[in-house]
Formats: sequence, C-alpha cells, structure tokens
Amino acid sequence: MLHFIGLGLADEKDVTVRGLEIIKRAERVYLEAYTAVLLVDKETLEAFYGRSVIIADREMVESSSDDILADADKVDVAFLVVGDPFGATTHTDLVLRARELNIPTNTVPNASILTGVGCTGLQLYNFGQTISMVFFTDNWRPASWYDKILENDAIGLHTLVLLDIKVKEPNLEALARGKIIYEPPRFMTVAQCAQQMIEIEEEKGNGICGKDALAVGVARVGAPDQTIVAGTLEQLSQSDLGKPLHSLVLIGKNTHDLERDYLRAYAVDPQTFDDAWAKKNERK
Amino acid sequence: MLHFIGLGLADEKDVTVRGLEIIKRAERVYLEAYTAVLLVDKETLEAFYGRSVIIADREMVESSSDDILADADKVDVAFLVVGDPFGATTHTDLVLRARELNIPTNTVPNASILTGVGCTGLQLYNFGQTISMVFFTDNWRPASWYDKILENDAIGLHTLVLLDIKVKEPNLEALARGKIIYEPPRFMTVAQCAQQMIEIEEEKGNGICGKDALAVGVARVGAPDQTIVAGTLEQLSQSDLGKPLHSLVLIGKNTHDLERDYLRAYAVDPQTFDDAWAKKNERK
Repeated sequence: MLHFIGLGLADEKDVTVRGLEIIKRAERVYLEAYTAVLLVDKETLEAFYGRSVIIADREMVESSSDDILADADKVDVAFLVVGDPFGATTHTDLVLRARELNIPTNTVPNASILTGVGCTGLQLYNFGQTISMVFFTDNWRPASWYDKILENDAIGLHTLVLLDIKVKEPNLEALARGKIIYEPPRFMTVAQCAQQMIEIEEEKGNGICGKDALAVGVARVGAPDQTIVAGTLEQLSQSDLGKPLHSLVLIGKNTHDLERDYLRAYAVDPQTFDDAWAKKNERK
Repeated sequence: MLHFIGLGLADEKDVTVRGLEIIKRAERVYLEAYTAVLLVDKETLEAFYGRSVIIADREMVESSSDDILADADKVDVAFLVVGDPFGATTHTDLVLRARELNIPTNTVPNASILTGVGCTGLQLYNFGQTISMVFFTDNWRPASWYDKILENDAIGLHTLVLLDIKVKEPNLEALARGKIIYEPPRFMTVAQCAQQMIEIEEEKGNGICGKDALAVGVARVGAPDQTIVAGTLEQLSQSDLGKPLHSLVLIGKNTHDLERDYLRAYAVDPQTFDDAWAKKNERK
C-alpha cells in the first residue's frame, strides 16, 4: 500500500501517532521536499524515525514515480508530505498513477497552512479561494492572482496567499554552459509578497491590495517561535518575520468583531490597525 | 499555560506526537465534545493517554470557563478539540478570555475537515466560503447559507457544507415539565443535507443546488472506513454513507480535469456523473 502521510507544519513531532507507526514499519520512506519544507532537516527526521528517508524532489515525483510506486502493491511505502497530503496537486496525480497500477492507497491527514492560518483569529469559514504568489523577475510578473482576490473581495472574504518556494532550482547561467549547479533555496517573505501586491495594485487600480489594505503576515505557524504581524500592506512590506515559511492573509470586508479583537494584539501599530479596520468596513 | 490541542478527525491515534506529550504531562485535560466528535469514546482516549479526561460541554466552555482557566497561569492545562483547534469560534473566544487573565496559550494544529475533504480529489484552493447546514424543523428552515453558495457559485468555487450535530440537547417537553432529560445525539447525514438543499432550491430557484447539481458526500474522513460518494444531489439524497460524521461538497464550475478523473471513481453511477459534469461546464 502507498501511504500519503502528512507531517504537519513545524517539526518532527508534528507527525500523528498513526503516521509515525506507518513510517516505522514501511519498506521505504520518501520525503516530498519541494512544495513545502519543515523547520527541521532530513537528519533530524531520520533520527526521530530511527530509519533512513529518501528525498523525493520534483523530478523524481513527476518523472520517475515508478521508483516510488515499485512493489507498493505488496509492501508498505510511505510518502511523506509537509502539511496535509492534499495540499498540492502533485499528490492527487500520484494517487491516480497508483490506481492505474492497482496499488491501494491510504492517506493520513495532518495540519495544513490552509487551516493553520486560523492562529490569526480570522475565521476559517470566511476565506475565499487560496492564491499563490511567485517571485517576480525583471520580465515575468504574473498577476492572475489579482482577479481571484478581486472575486474574493467582492463577496467580503479573506484571501490566503501562499508564498513561493524555490528549492533545488538550477542556475541558468551554469545550465547554459552545460553544467548543473543548484541555487541555494529561496523562500518568499511576507515583506516581498506585500511589496509585489502593492506594485500590481498600482498597475490595476481596483483598490483591493494597495498600501493601505489590511493584511496579516504569519511565519513558522505551529512552531514555538510562530510569529504573527498585522498591519497595512505598506507596514508589512517593511516587516521582518524571520526565518521561513511565511504566508499572508489579505483581510476581507465581512469580518466579525471577535476577529478584530483577536488580531489587534498582533498589530504593528494599534492606531493604524484600528483606522485601517474602520476604513475597510466603510467599503461594505 | 493553556494548550489547545487538535485531535484530528478519526480516532485516538490521530493526535500528533507533540500533542500527546503535552496531554501526558498536563495538570488537567478537557475534551471539547459539542462542535465535533471523534469516532472513539472518552474511555478509549483515556486508556490511550493513560489518564483521565474531563468532558467540556457547551455550557462549561461558554459559561464556566473559569474552571477550565483556573491556575493555567501556573500549570499546564490541555483543552482537546476534535479536528483543528481553530475550526470553531468558541475556541477563539476562550483564547481571548485567557489573554485577559494573562494566561499564556499554545496551539497544536491538526487535520481539519476543511482540508481533510481534499480526500475527494477536489483542489483545496478552489473552495469558497464554508457553510453550515442545521436540521430543519416544521417551523424553522434557515436558508441564509443559500446566498453564500450563490456567491461561491458565481465565481466557480466549491462549497464545503458542514453538517449539524446535536449533542446533549435537552428534551423540550420534559424541560416544560421542569425536568432535564437529554435527547440521544443526532448527526446530520449526507442524504438529509442533500434533501434540504433540494427543498430550498425549489423555493429560491437560482438553479445552484437542485436535484441535478453535482456534489460529493464524505463520511469518517481519515478513518479506515472513510467513504466518498459522488453524484447528483438527488442521488445523494438517497445515499447511505453509514456512521457519522458526514460532510458534503457542492462542486463549483471552475474545475480541473484532474478533479473529475479523481472523483469519478466514487460516482454512484459514472454515466450520470459524466452527464452532470458536462452540464456543469456548460454553465461557465
């Protein structure tokens, strides 16, 4: 059987008891390490599990999945995913390939940033569709996410923004010379995301994610040093939430006073926060 | 410190290793048992934890929270929540009360039905706001959820419907005679939810959740006997997914072929499923 096991958000102890039992008895253990990362390294996981772990990069999962699926109709194979197994499309695809080979699958759910972001006090049932923000380059500034924020905003909902992760990306100059050299991992910060949102707002001009828009940045959700910062996008663009992973929530119009009361404790500046909150409510 | 610990969705082994460590060392352990339930009883949890657990019903949490918070500034108190701790507004409120008393809090995230529903193959970032469906009575048929589905539908998103749970409800006839007798627990089924949606659609007539609308019902997500059934609301209104807890997803217009391919394996009838899927896409 192929087991998809969620590892949760922070470190080796966020695995569930059920998940840990399967990892310990599985014939092979893969760690998907390109759509999200834990705050601990592979060696820490291996020490905790008492066994070795194979890193599954994007190429292995998308092009060499036969290696992962080999013999999984006879033995237990564990495929570990940071967060919840169904957070990324990639894993849905892997289940489909297993089905084609008549390999039974099993899923062990866990915390995801999609619900972990509830630590902000924003009510999870008031979120609209989730968007992803990629690193802009000089000539590539994708902004299709803007329309999705616009849709969420029109019906008053919060928008969770998942931030880009670049792991094991080849250096393009080296690649042009026929050499494969990997860039160091990069993780988008709340400040970078806020800055990119402000830039696109200046181009589009619908007034949904400009400098004054109210948002909240989170870092290392579920870890002891979890950090939450609430403020305008301009304030967040100047913030430093420390080590990855970061996420951002753009706050919608339909809010509950309980959300404000909870979130206010994390405001960069309570006065600016109150003003931005009042201004947001005027747009209703 | 007051620890909010998510228990996940199915049974005693869905707690995280981190959560279990805190439960074992806490001075007191409360189990919130009215917004959701696990598939195992309190005694199973107590045997697994090796310690006793205090059931916290709605009255205790909302009216007698001082008992829960007592001494939590000096000792560890664990407050266990089925699913993820931030799934229900109640817990946000409890954190606020702890803050007022200068009691530090800590949250241990876990799987929630909001992400567990990814087991259907529907992409989690394509969900709109979540709605709740309560049991209709002869003279109380709340339908404010209909407008929210309408909003989600307009922008093509899926809608997760959380189904009513009645735990420890007093019998009204007995109450009128001055006696408190509790009704047996009741859990709404996918069939009941589908039926209520069809009834309200017949009144409102926007064509979003009638007999032909495509939906998927899930039961006991994360458990070994997890069940997924895809079909029209009419088909689901005649389905039997077995024991609680059930949830339902109304499928939006903006779908990916991967979602169809994944979900089709759970169709009541593949032909009807394909027809309903094609019809849904015509509405784009």
